[in-house]
Amino acid sequence: MNKRKIINDPVHGFISIPDELHFDLIEHPYFQRLRRIKQLGLTHLVYPGAFHTRFHHALGAMHLMVLAIGVLRTKGIQITEEEEQAATIAILLHDIGHGPFSHALEYSIVKGMRHETLSDLFMNQLNQEFDGKLEMALQIFRNTYHKHFLYQMVAGQLDVDRLDYLRRDSYFTGVSEGMIGTERIIKMLNVRNDHLVVESKGIYSIRHFLASRDNMYWQVYLHRTVLSAENLLIKTLSRAKEIASGDSSLFATPALRIFLNDHFTLPDFISRPELLEQFAKIDDFDIISCVKVWADHSDDPILSMLSQSLIQRKLFRIQLNLQPFSQETIDNAAKEAGMRYNIDPQWHHYLIANGEVENTIYHSDDDPIIMLEPSGNTIPYHQFNPEIEDRGFSRPVKKFYLCTVR
Amino acid sequence: MNKRKIINDPVHGFISIPDELHFDLIEHPYFQRLRRIKQLGLTHLVYPGAFHTRFHHALGAMHLMVLAIGVLRTKGIQITEEEEQAATIAILLHDIGHGPFSHALEYSIVKGMRHETLSDLFMNQLNQEFDGKLEMALQIFRNTYHKHFLYQMVAGQLDVDRLDYLRRDSYFTGVSEGMIGTERIIKMLNVRNDHLVVESKGIYSIRHFLASRDNMYWQVYLHRTVLSAENLLIKTLSRAKEIASGDSSLFATPALRIFLNDHFTLPDFISRPELLEQFAKIDDFDIISCVKVWADHSDDPILSMLSQSLIQRKLFRIQLNLQPFSQETIDNAAKEAGMRYNIDPQWHHYLIANGEVENTIYHSDDDPIIMLEPSGNTIPYHQFNPEIEDRGFSRPVKKFYLCTVR
Amino acid sequence: MNKRKIINDPVHGFISIPDELHFDLIEHPYFQRLRRIKQLGLTHLVYPGAFHTRFHHALGAMHLMVLAIGVLRTKGIQITEEEEQAATIAILLHDIGHGPFSHALEYSIVKGMRHETLSDLFMNQLNQEFDGKLEMALQIFRNTYHKHFLYQMVAGQLDVDRLDYLRRDSYFTGVSEGMIGTERIIKMLNVRNDHLVVESKGIYSIRHFLASRDNMYWQVYLHRTVLSAENLLIKTLSRAKEIASGDSSLFATPALRIFLNDHFTLPDFISRPELLEQFAKIDDFDIISCVKVWADHSDDPILSMLSQSLIQRKLFRIQLNLQPFSQETIDNAAKEAGMRYNIDPQWHHYLIANGEVENTIYHSDDDPIIMLEPSGNTIPYHQFNPEIEDRGFSRPVKKFYLCTVR
Amino acid sequence: MNKRKIINDPVHGFISIPDELHFDLIEHPYFQRLRRIKQLGLTHLVYPGAFHTRFHHALGAMHLMVLAIGVLRTKGIQITEEEEQAATIAILLHDIGHGPFSHALEYSIVKGMRHETLSDLFMNQLNQEFDGKLEMALQIFRNTYHKHFLYQMVAGQLDVDRLDYLRRDSYFTGVSEGMIGTERIIKMLNVRNDHLVVESKGIYSIRHFLASRDNMYWQVYLHRTVLSAENLLIKTLSRAKEIASGDSSLFATPALRIFLNDHFTLPDFISRPELLEQFAKIDDFDIISCVKVWADHSDDPILSMLSQSLIQRKLFRIQLNLQPFSQETIDNAAKEAGMRYNIDPQWHHYLIANGEVENTIYHSDDDPIIMLEPSGNTIPYHQFNPEIEDRGFSRPVKKFYLCTVR
Repeated sequence: MNKRKIINDPVHGFISIPDELHFDLIEHPYFQRLRRIKQLGLTHLVYPGAFHTRFHHALGAMHLMVLAIGVLRTKGIQITEEEEQAATIAILLHDIGHGPFSHALEYSIVKGMRHETLSDLFMNQLNQEFDGKLEMALQIFRNTYHKHFLYQMVAGQLDVDRLDYLRRDSYFTGVSEGMIGTERIIKMLNVRNDHLVVESKGIYSIRHFLASRDNMYWQVYLHRTVLSAENLLIKTLSRAKEIASGDSSLFATPALRIFLNDHFTLPDFISRPELLEQFAKIDDFDIISCVKVWADHSDDPILSMLSQSLIQRKLFRIQLNLQPFSQETIDNAAKEAGMRYNIDPQWHHYLIANGEVENTIYHSDDDPIIMLEPSGNTIPYHQFNPEIEDRGFSRPVKKFYLCTVR
Repeated sequence: MNKRKIINDPVHGFISIPDELHFDLIEHPYFQRLRRIKQLGLTHLVYPGAFHTRFHHALGAMHLMVLAIGVLRTKGIQITEEEEQAATIAILLHDIGHGPFSHALEYSIVKGMRHETLSDLFMNQLNQEFDGKLEMALQIFRNTYHKHFLYQMVAGQLDVDRLDYLRRDSYFTGVSEGMIGTERIIKMLNVRNDHLVVESKGIYSIRHFLASRDNMYWQVYLHRTVLSAENLLIKTLSRAKEIASGDSSLFATPALRIFLNDHFTLPDFISRPELLEQFAKIDDFDIISCVKVWADHSDDPILSMLSQSLIQRKLFRIQLNLQPFSQETIDNAAKEAGMRYNIDPQWHHYLIANGEVENTIYHSDDDPIIMLEPSGNTIPYHQFNPEIEDRGFSRPVKKFYLCTVR
Repeated sequence: MNKRKIINDPVHGFISIPDELHFDLIEHPYFQRLRRIKQLGLTHLVYPGAFHTRFHHALGAMHLMVLAIGVLRTKGIQITEEEEQAATIAILLHDIGHGPFSHALEYSIVKGMRHETLSDLFMNQLNQEFDGKLEMALQIFRNTYHKHFLYQMVAGQLDVDRLDYLRRDSYFTGVSEGMIGTERIIKMLNVRNDHLVVESKGIYSIRHFLASRDNMYWQVYLHRTVLSAENLLIKTLSRAKEIASGDSSLFATPALRIFLNDHFTLPDFISRPELLEQFAKIDDFDIISCVKVWADHSDDPILSMLSQSLIQRKLFRIQLNLQPFSQETIDNAAKEAGMRYNIDPQWHHYLIANGEVENTIYHSDDDPIIMLEPSGNTIPYHQFNPEIEDRGFSRPVKKFYLCTVR
Repeated sequence: MNKRKIINDPVHGFISIPDELHFDLIEHPYFQRLRRIKQLGLTHLVYPGAFHTRFHHALGAMHLMVLAIGVLRTKGIQITEEEEQAATIAILLHDIGHGPFSHALEYSIVKGMRHETLSDLFMNQLNQEFDGKLEMALQIFRNTYHKHFLYQMVAGQLDVDRLDYLRRDSYFTGVSEGMIGTERIIKMLNVRNDHLVVESKGIYSIRHFLASRDNMYWQVYLHRTVLSAENLLIKTLSRAKEIASGDSSLFATPALRIFLNDHFTLPDFISRPELLEQFAKIDDFDIISCVKVWADHSDDPILSMLSQSLIQRKLFRIQLNLQPFSQETIDNAAKEAGMRYNIDPQWHHYLIANGEVENTIYHSDDDPIIMLEPSGNTIPYHQFNPEIEDRGFSRPVKKFYLCTVR
């Protein structure tokens, strides 16, 4: 069987699968399930092209890793065949722990189970199934491998993860303000003192990369309507879980039912391996098909109302502020909504949502981007380009939101 | 409420919703459901970017209709405001009858209900809900409106439907060989004797359009693996329906259950309006979430096996031939598969699939494309460009396929 | 004759010429000469795709003006047919005064004649030839027309000039960091109190536009090698003029000879109309073909050396500093170069060049960009988006350069 | 000095210069002159973006050769470092013999000197200057190297020359109908029996490539207005040469003068090496700056009239026919034009031009494209895809033109 397939990718052109191990990992049900998990959750409600999957992103990031390693080698950086395989596997699997609507799930059905933790569990499990062949990949992923720069390529301010997803999300949303110069940045990479660095002539590409990322945060990832939809989904799933924990007749697919009826934490996942297997069966289709049924067939008016709002796209109204909302404002909003829908005060918290979001353009104090001058000197980006500090790019921008049912 | 929204479209840039009626139609649940129906069904199993929806295509085609009408008006063609509204609504709703995996459904669960028929039913229903405001749109859609050229823009060899979907499918699959010059073709449109025509300087754009369309057929729509996946889905759904008609305990979402348990035909849809309402509740999420459950939780080994094949992407093996397969070849394939899986001969037909596919580059005898010369003469495309006939572009190319379970 | 032509433009798709007057203006030799004047002068020495012309840019800007006016009209802004014609002509001709390598020429051969002044002279002359039909266009161009917002569309912080050239220069250089969202910005334009405004949902497009423009300045327009090449050309032409003013046998095309042999100022141009006619005959071909001849056939070693450097791309070495170079540093550089080439000290100034460049991301105090909130309120961009002020985007960034012959 | 530069290319992204030898060849004046020679001559008169140069194309083709060799190596094809260097140099220099407006020059000023011959002369000269380091490149270029497939990559029906120029010309003209899938084709290349082959899954990319190439011929390279402009230039230069051969006072740049005053053939070029040196000094700037001067300053009314027509874009009227024009039609056209301009019959031949153009989509009989099936079988493209023969793609399409002065 031909395992050196080429996959069409409108973003990078064509993606070649490097070797048989990659092929077999991609064929594994844990990875194939990513075909059914959208990269951007409910964002398609705002940007109707945003249906691309975590499957596609993982392949794209793997592809960029291959390119980046190729560039580093032409510059004399030693990377063995085995390290290449490990690094490309690490990035291929870096997001394998994502469930459907990952952020929303972490705040409702699998509270406390972060996707990074789940990725680690999945990779560990795969390592066993593949007879330890993923050992080095795991080390890189966990940053315990001695070549630190390989970790930085998987998870850093300039990793191939971001280099893929910013460009991919820009392509599928059509938000041209996020279209970064992926290829140029990769051509500018180098390594000094076991640290990933960027040749200084790439300074404007980095600057544009940071600005584009910030744009994508405010225009897409933290778009008001996306926040509103996500909070609505959190409330919907929370309500469903509350009901299901007492009444097992609520419609659900078998895999989702398990996580609706009971609550599991990391120790459970560790002691009961079948839980991971079950978790791996949940994807976007379970969530949305259940929400659709709840909209019409639930005995609970709150669940029905929330579900209908989501399916018919009557999302939460959302206000954004640079200052926190007062408790009074929040309470009034809840009360007003409760009276409008004639809901008992104890359930008012399902009718509103509040919280905060933030983004920092560039982190100067946590593993900063390092520039490499023609002289061979290295210098952190924010010292190379003083406006970074002058202009406060390391200062997070924070916004507070308050959602209320329509 | 602002009903003049602008929607991001990576394909055409930005799409403006023309007026409130369009806005209200788009908000209607019948139309919103298209957000949950992929334009290309299972094609994403081959081209992993192909997750765009019928919702997005319908908006894109509406946008092109607005552009095309604008171009025609600058050339002095009279199109009233009312006609513009009707034509843009006709194209907006032209595909509203599509169910999920439309082609597969027509061959399994709703046998005999073609999506054109369903579109007509939906539009009729919407016309009633909107107090007859869709009357002229319906006339254009049904080709009973006196200005024939408006119909041709909705459904012809050079309609805005094709001008959108070829470009859109090319964008999301990444098959650059299908990237047509939509904008140029639209700029070349004109009308003579109530017939849509193309100015002769657009001759190469038309030629490229036809060649690209043919490419998309063979590279995407009729791609061997897509055919294989679609046939597997037909068999899966057929088997589910066979089981469900006798045993109502088979897992299904409520809406899908209705169409699994019973079979309905056009007279049923006409006499029982709630059927259309129920049909409108089925989308990709119902189909795939059920197939996923059947893969693990069905008592029927055939249904389980077919469902697992689909979910784990172990698709049918497929052979393509320019000649039909002999009955003997087909029988042998069925028998061999049956023995391999130890299946009773009466169910062997679930293990194989055969059929034919064809495409014709250009139809010279059925409402041909008309070219307009600078002199004002009009001439059919195949006479303007004699190679069309010489080279047999009007001759269909037909291929026969035989699928067998892996 | 068909004067409603469509012109292929890889940047915006297709450009339609609005009417016969535009067609005739485009056909005029004054405008046709722009076909032979590159938009970006010597930038192609760094970015080898940057050969696009001022002709192409002027058509592109005209096209965007047509789009923008169309958008404003759908929002209820009154713009008469005559005003539309005038505004599109004003932008079509806004750069008609540019000579070849315009910046370099202004510092050497036609010192003191700024291209804005020349554009005014050309437009005035055309207005006479076209029987006063350009009167309103001239008023808009000179900002004396009563609708101020039309002027802002021709020359403001968000004019169609910038909306075209940033995107065009990005396309032809391949500097993806300058690819602005032209179409989205135009869709967001509106007018309030006779002032061009941007709807507030376009805030990120504006932000990206400003950042991209800044990127283009530092990556392209003020690229160190471009500065070096331009300064070399200034020195070459200055030397040629010095020689030619005393010795008319220096090779030159007839039109260039006129401006080499004598020096003319605005009063000359006004009193001797044939001067403008002669100036209109000079383009890139005159300059480069002469430099090529001077490289081989000049009696003057300085002119030969400078010309050869330019043709063989042995450009000035260039240093960039955030602080001015001391006079001593400059003098030493001149002296060192003079000794190296054995040149008399009185001519040392031909061997070096120094100066400063600067760019300001956004001008908050000079006709700022105005945002329009959904409430109808208008607010300057830097108050709408406080980071603009916080982060010092209105503070110019200045760099000093010192070039020395190689 | 850093000789591993990266060059911005909007078409392929970034082009790396492989090694120092390539760098030094690119720096050589013979190669730098290609910066001043447009790839598509006068095509910009129709497609105003078409100003890209032979310099840019040569770099692009070199880049694709590097990619293609990389692909072949991953498939186990042995290509030594030396062969890679030779093949990339062969393609880098394959067009170095092109003069400005190459086709027009071959029919006027350097009649009989084909650019292939001149390329060979230049490469030979460079080989001497570079101490024989271009020996193997010359062998590949001349098809005398034992690995035939390397020659096919330089000059075949699917060479990197075409793979670059079709895509590049499409990019700069904006003719989207010529946008081929360069990257996909390169990924599909392989070698069998010392023959370049294409894996059979690339069949539709090949088909699209051939159709796009044909489109580019008729839409761009043989566009009626381009033919008209080119014929006008031939007549202009022929007239200038006729005058100059008798009267050396005609304005010309020194290098062009040499080839205007005298006629040289291959033996001259061989016996007088300085001729090649002089030829290397002629580029677009010499031709156009002279034509501009002739338009105003020639004593010969025919030369003035032809030159003015070119500069002011009052090109020849052109008729295209599928049949040859009769001698009578041609004579009448000449006579009519002669009378209109009151020109002596002996010079009538300057007022008209006639000839033929043709293109063949695919050559089945001359080194056909070979497809490689998964089984390992190889089969010519026209047998793999029978419609090629059925539909007459190997039959040339020929058109006849007749141009007359306006």
